[in-house]
Amino acid sequence: MHKYLSASESLEIDVELMGESYGFSTDQLMELAGLSVSHACVEAFPLSGLKNGGKCLIVCGPGNNGGDGLVCARHLKQFGYSPIVLYPKKEAAQKDLYKRLLLQCTHFSIPIHYETNSPLLEDSSFDFIVDAIFGYSFSGKQGIREPFKTVIDTLKKPGNNTPILSIDLPSGWDVDNENIEENLQIGLRCDVIVSLPSPKKCAIHFKGRHFIGGRFMPQSLLDKLQIDLPPYEGTKIIIELPSKL
Amino acid sequence: MHKYLSASESLEIDVELMGESYGFSTDQLMELAGLSVSHACVEAFPLSGLKNGGKCLIVCGPGNNGGDGLVCARHLKQFGYSPIVLYPKKEAAQKDLYKRLLLQCTHFSIPIHYETNSPLLEDSSFDFIVDAIFGYSFSGKQGIREPFKTVIDTLKKPGNNTPILSIDLPSGWDVDNENIEENLQIGLRCDVIVSLPSPKKCAIHFKGRHFIGGRFMPQSLLDKLQIDLPPYEGTKIIIELPSKL
Repeated sequence: MHKYLSASESLEIDVELMGESYGFSTDQLMELAGLSVSHACVEAFPLSGLKNGGKCLIVCGPGNNGGDGLVCARHLKQFGYSPIVLYPKKEAAQKDLYKRLLLQCTHFSIPIHYETNSPLLEDSSFDFIVDAIFGYSFSGKQGIREPFKTVIDTLKKPGNNTPILSIDLPSGWDVDNENIEENLQIGLRCDVIVSLPSPKKCAIHFKGRHFIGGRFMPQSLLDKLQIDLPPYEGTKIIIELPSKL
Repeated sequence: MHKYLSASESLEIDVELMGESYGFSTDQLMELAGLSVSHACVEAFPLSGLKNGGKCLIVCGPGNNGGDGLVCARHLKQFGYSPIVLYPKKEAAQKDLYKRLLLQCTHFSIPIHYETNSPLLEDSSFDFIVDAIFGYSFSGKQGIREPFKTVIDTLKKPGNNTPILSIDLPSGWDVDNENIEENLQIGLRCDVIVSLPSPKKCAIHFKGRHFIGGRFMPQSLLDKLQIDLPPYEGTKIIIELPSKL
């Protein structure tokens, strides 16, 4: 039985890693996180099995989950996929880090759309969608604000069934709520999760494929939080948890 | 025939990538560079074939080459190796980035030695040494200053023959000088090179194993500098150039 993290434990990890004690920069961890997510995409959606040559939509939120998505998009492009970025909250791109990550995407010839109500969300020609909207800091109590309420509701419309891979946890799920039915009422549907650096409580009964990424946790911090993950193999930066089906 | 970069072309790449046009941060690129180097170490020195369980010495210089070495050490530790860092110029560790990378090494239980004239350099129990002393900005004309002259001379003493893997190019070689004999008079001996993101002129006649790492170059910049590398496979972040033997 793996440890499933609560919202407060997830926050504690970030505060520790990026605080004075460990001294990681957001740039550094985001690069490793986004790279891990891109590897999980390759594992879950191998190019050879895709109908549209790896055309994928990366839907990015206004915070670090969105930043992970931008890094993932850049690496997917390097791996031969054709990502398109949807960044509905353009104001968030004012933050230096996200501005730079978006600039890098542009230089990798990745189209970026800043639309808030985009036809891309209902375009069935995508092989898969990466949900990089919200991470663990979203709590169901506050509800989903626009423009992301519309984004999530559109992706959930009947008939829209492109597979979705979520970064860390499905957007709109309450990290601490283990009831998937309740989470699905507000949050996004999801086929594959890539959790960083450990699975979250809300996914304890999740039946889809579940990867763990972000091979950057010092043993001391894993021990402190009693996180006991299966070992990473060789130089791999992702692990797949055993299926619950 | 691959393109072998001059010192000025190497500088141009760094200036472009980390300047306003591409907006990469040093943290970001150093993480990808150091990760690539660690993958090349695993390929060149697989754990299963080593006598001392992956005990390795990472000798770090005062600049970004040394920073790549610190990132490499951290990832090697994750991969099951036992790196020890030698950082002879402690003053350089005052720079925030290097200070944080050293702190991270400490949290990964990697011993760090700040000695300038270290017995570690003649310790034959290391399975291999990573030369992270100088990169492309070193020019033979200025000579090698202490403490690194002693470090390099010690590693070259007869009888010291632990294999050396150099980051970018062997330390003390003049990037623009294709004459290996001349480079070896001043600079370090070398068995394996990992060049980032493309091989350097001084290594054009190098007969050892030669890897390319740092899969972070946008096609536009590769085109501009007429760099034509063999393709990276799948999600791999290193390429090995064909042997010249």
